[in-house]
Amino acid sequence: MSRIGVDEHAGYVRSLLTGLSARPAERVALADALGRVTVSPTASPIALPPFRNAQMDGYAVRAADTTDAPLALPVAGEVAAAPGEPAPLAPGTAVRIMTGAPVPAGADAVVRVEDTDRGTEQVRIDAPVAAGTYVREAGSDLTQGDDVLPPGVRLASRHLAAAAASGLTHLLVRERVRVAVVSTGSELVDAGTRLAPGELPDANGVALAAAVAATGAAVVHRGRVRDDVLRFRDELDAAVDAGAELVITSGGISQGAYEVVRELLEPLGAWVGSVAMQPGGPQAVGVYRRVPVVAFPGNPVSAQVSFEVFVAPVLRAIAKLPPARTARLPLAESVDSVAGKRQFRRGRLTADGTVAPVGGPGSHLVAALAASDLLFVVPEDVTELAAGALVDTVEL
Amino acid sequence: MSRIGVDEHAGYVRSLLTGLSARPAERVALADALGRVTVSPTASPIALPPFRNAQMDGYAVRAADTTDAPLALPVAGEVAAAPGEPAPLAPGTAVRIMTGAPVPAGADAVVRVEDTDRGTEQVRIDAPVAAGTYVREAGSDLTQGDDVLPPGVRLASRHLAAAAASGLTHLLVRERVRVAVVSTGSELVDAGTRLAPGELPDANGVALAAAVAATGAAVVHRGRVRDDVLRFRDELDAAVDAGAELVITSGGISQGAYEVVRELLEPLGAWVGSVAMQPGGPQAVGVYRRVPVVAFPGNPVSAQVSFEVFVAPVLRAIAKLPPARTARLPLAESVDSVAGKRQFRRGRLTADGTVAPVGGPGSHLVAALAASDLLFVVPEDVTELAAGALVDTVEL
Repeated sequence: MSRIGVDEHAGYVRSLLTGLSARPAERVALADALGRVTVSPTASPIALPPFRNAQMDGYAVRAADTTDAPLALPVAGEVAAAPGEPAPLAPGTAVRIMTGAPVPAGADAVVRVEDTDRGTEQVRIDAPVAAGTYVREAGSDLTQGDDVLPPGVRLASRHLAAAAASGLTHLLVRERVRVAVVSTGSELVDAGTRLAPGELPDANGVALAAAVAATGAAVVHRGRVRDDVLRFRDELDAAVDAGAELVITSGGISQGAYEVVRELLEPLGAWVGSVAMQPGGPQAVGVYRRVPVVAFPGNPVSAQVSFEVFVAPVLRAIAKLPPARTARLPLAESVDSVAGKRQFRRGRLTADGTVAPVGGPGSHLVAALAASDLLFVVPEDVTELAAGALVDTVEL
Repeated sequence: MSRIGVDEHAGYVRSLLTGLSARPAERVALADALGRVTVSPTASPIALPPFRNAQMDGYAVRAADTTDAPLALPVAGEVAAAPGEPAPLAPGTAVRIMTGAPVPAGADAVVRVEDTDRGTEQVRIDAPVAAGTYVREAGSDLTQGDDVLPPGVRLASRHLAAAAASGLTHLLVRERVRVAVVSTGSELVDAGTRLAPGELPDANGVALAAAVAATGAAVVHRGRVRDDVLRFRDELDAAVDAGAELVITSGGISQGAYEVVRELLEPLGAWVGSVAMQPGGPQAVGVYRRVPVVAFPGNPVSAQVSFEVFVAPVLRAIAKLPPARTARLPLAESVDSVAGKRQFRRGRLTADGTVAPVGGPGSHLVAALAASDLLFVVPEDVTELAAGALVDTVEL
């Protein structure tokens, strides 16, 4: 059985998934676009603001008419922030104007209501104003046809605000990566079933699907099969038929006698072997009906760690999610490891900024994984780390 | 008109929203639980692992039978990771065993397949093994009845893995906060409508809804009304009838003549006034039919900044989302500000770790907001900051 290093396997997975990066585009309504990623520069069909408008509640005036202020001007009317073209401002007059309302032709400044006597027939203006005061020029934020959003932006509310303000109703975004999750193992039953001897609830189905969703991809198929290679083949067919661009499997790739993933995929050219890591030693990558298949061990801890190490970085990058946060932190206590394997141990950040291991290295410690908030790495060539030693950590 | 400080207003909003923190609980299926927050400690109905099982593919043996290894033992059978109780191991024999399969009674160690000749009739064992080797004891991760998840955990895939492995199908989680978003303004039309003079696309509807969703709350109602106080009242009624526990409005609270939010809510005891900040000076908080209403100015930049400053921290804490990241960073260029107001300017983190302002202080610069990735603060008592001056930033 071939055995390779963690970085080498990560490279295999990355290159197998390269094709996923060229995302087709789809148009989605702004209301559905949060978290999606823009495909191309998005031009604004209008200028922003689309018309010259008042920055303050007050009075629209000609600045030149206020030179001798304090003075009073007759109030010729009122402009609300409402549809309609306001009448031009006659020289020597003022019109009451609301924030955001169009500034009438002829006016070139707004006097804040606070700087007047709030008059309705005529208004007393306390001090001269300069031309342009409290006037937002049309196009002062964005010229019509200019890009309101660049490509490759993961859309947050502020991007949707600008897109909507530009009158856009839809945006071109990357299609989500469509992923299928298939658990294998005759011992697996639905969670909630009363367990007979030797039975286990399927944890990877729901947990790998959640891990996929957390990276911004879409789970288009979920399945579970017993250790029967024809059933497994049917399940892969169903996954591909459901449009999966990536299939993630758990179980069926180690040295035992009933290894359905190995049995089906190895003859099709898949690499099934061992990666120098703990947990997650058995790993496989292959292609089924042109769809990449990344196969993890069946243990939920191994599967979660494998996903985080090999697949999550690729999917996060496609979805423009930030990579998992990393830090180099001191250990709260000593740990030992096995030579020749990179250990991804589970731990917790303590109040004093050190890393406390949670549970041992055993890949069956799924409750300990749930109680952890980070992975920390014990390198291949290290068998012992003292308390205080610095370790690389990845936030979970 | 009363004018208060930013922190004072933030305190008002926080205390108005205190009631939201006491979340009712609901049961959700694990498949729908990603990102939800556990309510109470969740006990595991089973031990983890539920039965003693093999950590490796190999042979289950009595350790005592291997003392004189290398030696050969007859292979009495095979145990797969499959349902069923394996027959007890007869002394002086071995059974082939797969990773995860139940270790037969009588056996107390597993010899890795790599440390044997892989025999099927009899197996040669290279070296003695100690009792317990490659055996995972039942309950070694978690005792039956112990807590697999604590309360107040925002559920990630690893928590779902542990819950599913425990046989749980549902979890008790906090109900999401139910929020309504209401835009006011006669000038507003649907995005995509050809704009007549004085009309603007409604940007706050979609953008505040997205901002709410990004904090883990649920938008249960969205509405838009022209500046007609009865229409606004109907819309608030619809929001409350839809189950909203919090209504967020935009527009209608400044000094102008058509301020429907002020008009309806001030007589009901709402505070409508001015907060010493830019953007977002006009603010209001009130209660309508016992439901808190937090009212923002109509400008999309003001509304987004107001949401981030006043409401997002409360909703994020309820959803156990981390607070927005803050940092104190040097300015790339000088900025000036107005005395007596806290400016929340928009900026970008540059490659050299400085903050480059994007656009000026104008609250109409929504495209500039979209092009920003942080807010930076110019304090109330500061009117000028030189390049290199440190500013407090909040990641967007």
